[in-house]
Amino acid sequence: MAAEARVWTLGQIASLVDGKLHGPSDQPVSRPVPAGWDEPSGITFAEDEANLSKAQGSSVGAVLIGPGMVLGDRPHIVVSSPRAAFFRVLGAFETQPFLESGVHPTAVVAPEATVEPGASVGAFAVIEARAVVESGARVFAHCYVGQGSRIGARSVLMPGVVLYPNVVIGADCLLHSGVVLGCDGFGFFWDGSRQMKIPHAGHLRVGDMCEFGANTCIDRATCGDSIVGEGVKLDNLVHIGHNARIGAHTVMAGQVGVSGSVTLGERCVIGGQSGITDHVTVAGGTRVGGMSGVSNDVPDAKELFGIPARPLAESMRSLAALRKLPELFKRVMALESQIKRTQD
Amino acid sequence: MAAEARVWTLGQIASLVDGKLHGPSDQPVSRPVPAGWDEPSGITFAEDEANLSKAQGSSVGAVLIGPGMVLGDRPHIVVSSPRAAFFRVLGAFETQPFLESGVHPTAVVAPEATVEPGASVGAFAVIEARAVVESGARVFAHCYVGQGSRIGARSVLMPGVVLYPNVVIGADCLLHSGVVLGCDGFGFFWDGSRQMKIPHAGHLRVGDMCEFGANTCIDRATCGDSIVGEGVKLDNLVHIGHNARIGAHTVMAGQVGVSGSVTLGERCVIGGQSGITDHVTVAGGTRVGGMSGVSNDVPDAKELFGIPARPLAESMRSLAALRKLPELFKRVMALESQIKRTQD
Amino acid sequence: MAAEARVWTLGQIASLVDGKLHGPSDQPVSRPVPAGWDEPSGITFAEDEANLSKAQGSSVGAVLIGPGMVLGDRPHIVVSSPRAAFFRVLGAFETQPFLESGVHPTAVVAPEATVEPGASVGAFAVIEARAVVESGARVFAHCYVGQGSRIGARSVLMPGVVLYPNVVIGADCLLHSGVVLGCDGFGFFWDGSRQMKIPHAGHLRVGDMCEFGANTCIDRATCGDSIVGEGVKLDNLVHIGHNARIGAHTVMAGQVGVSGSVTLGERCVIGGQSGITDHVTVAGGTRVGGMSGVSNDVPDAKELFGIPARPLAESMRSLAALRKLPELFKRVMALESQIKRTQD
Repeated sequence: MAAEARVWTLGQIASLVDGKLHGPSDQPVSRPVPAGWDEPSGITFAEDEANLSKAQGSSVGAVLIGPGMVLGDRPHIVVSSPRAAFFRVLGAFETQPFLESGVHPTAVVAPEATVEPGASVGAFAVIEARAVVESGARVFAHCYVGQGSRIGARSVLMPGVVLYPNVVIGADCLLHSGVVLGCDGFGFFWDGSRQMKIPHAGHLRVGDMCEFGANTCIDRATCGDSIVGEGVKLDNLVHIGHNARIGAHTVMAGQVGVSGSVTLGERCVIGGQSGITDHVTVAGGTRVGGMSGVSNDVPDAKELFGIPARPLAESMRSLAALRKLPELFKRVMALESQIKRTQD
Repeated sequence: MAAEARVWTLGQIASLVDGKLHGPSDQPVSRPVPAGWDEPSGITFAEDEANLSKAQGSSVGAVLIGPGMVLGDRPHIVVSSPRAAFFRVLGAFETQPFLESGVHPTAVVAPEATVEPGASVGAFAVIEARAVVESGARVFAHCYVGQGSRIGARSVLMPGVVLYPNVVIGADCLLHSGVVLGCDGFGFFWDGSRQMKIPHAGHLRVGDMCEFGANTCIDRATCGDSIVGEGVKLDNLVHIGHNARIGAHTVMAGQVGVSGSVTLGERCVIGGQSGITDHVTVAGGTRVGGMSGVSNDVPDAKELFGIPARPLAESMRSLAALRKLPELFKRVMALESQIKRTQD
Repeated sequence: MAAEARVWTLGQIASLVDGKLHGPSDQPVSRPVPAGWDEPSGITFAEDEANLSKAQGSSVGAVLIGPGMVLGDRPHIVVSSPRAAFFRVLGAFETQPFLESGVHPTAVVAPEATVEPGASVGAFAVIEARAVVESGARVFAHCYVGQGSRIGARSVLMPGVVLYPNVVIGADCLLHSGVVLGCDGFGFFWDGSRQMKIPHAGHLRVGDMCEFGANTCIDRATCGDSIVGEGVKLDNLVHIGHNARIGAHTVMAGQVGVSGSVTLGERCVIGGQSGITDHVTVAGGTRVGGMSGVSNDVPDAKELFGIPARPLAESMRSLAALRKLPELFKRVMALESQIKRTQD
């Protein structure tokens, strides 16, 4: 059965977040809302004065606040961390896509494939030979799992994910719809009359607890493995080329492009629409601003920005100078005529 | 039955566009073509001298022209607006993807879902519990409609569209293949040892008459709603983050990226591959050039360009100055040596 | 039956690449690996001293080397071109996605469609009326082939490819998962109160031996044809607008965006995340660096870089100058005070 949209009471919420309720415990709570939303059956949170006054200025039904904060008559729940408590409320109200346990009768599972007990396979999914879907994993409708691929325990493939052959996904991963993993890398050579394709005999290995956004693509290696470390989070429409190595816990915002044979260290943060040139090595902990192009190795963790990417402060100085550049031309012209007059 | 490619006659075209025919009414017309194409059974249009002479220099079969224009012997149809008439001809020749009415026998529709009379659901589509497909809506093959989602009257989901739960689509929308709506937003926080996921309890609401290009993604809200206003048109591979609010009739070209919690006013025009930083608010009527990065609020409608985006004229002045910058270095060096000489 | 992961012997590899073996012919080879990998059952190649010493410093099982090279005791195979030989080894170890020949019983093929003998259609694929799948072509699971579309001999549509109606694909093409071809172009006009859609009556024609990466989109023409020449290779997440004409053997890296009505000559190379403005014509042989924006016609083959794209050397000079710009401000300020002192 699909979960119904639940309505909670303030009392239930207070007990969920282990907080102290000031207000009617039977007040209905229909959903969490951002600070400032007018929703009499909504709940929001405040951990600073700005959000507190936003909440006070709205008709929101209740507010999660910290120990030292004062809200007046508005129903509220006092907790040690309003933000953490609010995330628990979000979790309670989130609607997870629904998947019946077991293998849907319409799914096509090759006889040589393994779907472990406790795994789920949705309608019209295709699981090819020698693929393994581990216990607790959920493969939604319209997914394709190529031969020899492996989906770790409790990992989720949302509707329409494609795994090419020999893609190994760790445990507790979440792959959103339209993700394509293990596609051929982009490798060709010109033989004098046309581009010849370089075969891609390598694999793709993804660690535990990774999340990849909708329509994100990661290619397999030419040979050896493309490797995505544990806890890597990629937003929508990210492209990662063949033989890339992405360090654990690295995060990339939407539409980032990582070319082939790039090595990124652990805990890098790459801003949206940035790109990394092929064969570049980037130190762990590096932070790259949005729309930046990293075209050289980054040996030490830095904050980078720009095309090509340079240390943030340097790029900012250049941009500030560029803004005043038309004026500099005028100043130089003035100097030139002064000198000329001096010399006349 | 699938529609056959139709062949029209010039007489039929003249009557379709309500124009005055000069030429044989039984001349066959196989398809509309761009100005200058050599296609004796084609038809094109001219509303200025440039296109008129392109048409005259080609072997095109017939031309739609305006009242004051002269074309000689070539068959032509005189109409008040050649462009508008040509669009009607395009419509007559367009091949719409075909979908039989009713629910295809292979589709999996949950018992608690509602497919209204007059709606169509294609092969292998999955409609989850509490989802509603309104009258006249068409859900093509391989689409996935999550629980509680709603597709407005006459809206079309091309093959392979995915709606996560609780996505509400207005009437008369067109979602192209690979579109993913309502995906989890990109929200994590570092707990000291790994990125923790922020649940996404919010929804996504899309107004009437929107069109989203192939493989475009729009995330649902963390809480509250992501909102796309009526008449919004997005090209292919666009990314829109969680809690975004896109004003009515705003248009974005291919591969634009809009980060989380951005608010765009009505009738903005965003050029291809541009990006908007999270939490930025952009005034209605703003125009952003291609490959620009809007990283600050835009309080008044402006034309912007560059990374970071600045008023178009300013950016153009800086770019022009940048082009002459190497020369400016030489001029400054010359001044320096002149001064030095003066002082010696 | 799905192909098993094969284990070869060194002797078999030597005979595959037509080389001279120095080492035990029964040594097992489990897979090709990059230079420097520690894999006792792996094989790599070296065509220069750098890779040779990488191989020597690793525990790789065997190495393909050129005629004049010396490797010592490590098992090796001498061939005329180590790289070409290695590509043959890659081909031998590549796992191709598997598709049973013939039409899968779950596929929905319209009675008016043609699947030629020797073609394959996978599970849950949909082939609409008047579509043709030529001999040897392989349409994997979850693909959608719109009415009147044609897939040339031996071309492959990986799982989840969508062809809108009237898309013609040549022979020996490879379309990766999530590719959407023939989608409506992005064409609207403002009628005073809303964006009106321009119908797209044109087609899309793709030449022989093209390869398109995962989630890449190419729109059909407004009228006439969008044309992709033979041998064109596009990486993942590329966007090509309506009425584009892409010359033969042109190559585009990931996330490139080509706007509507662009004409690219033959053998262009476009770097990742670059964009080309609508209606621009680019000469054959042009090379565009990554993250560049081509906004004007390029009449002669050039190497271009930057936003907007300019000849590479010019852009590099401007960037170098920009880096020193803050210092130039200081120099001008110094000149100004010197002049002032002179004049006092």
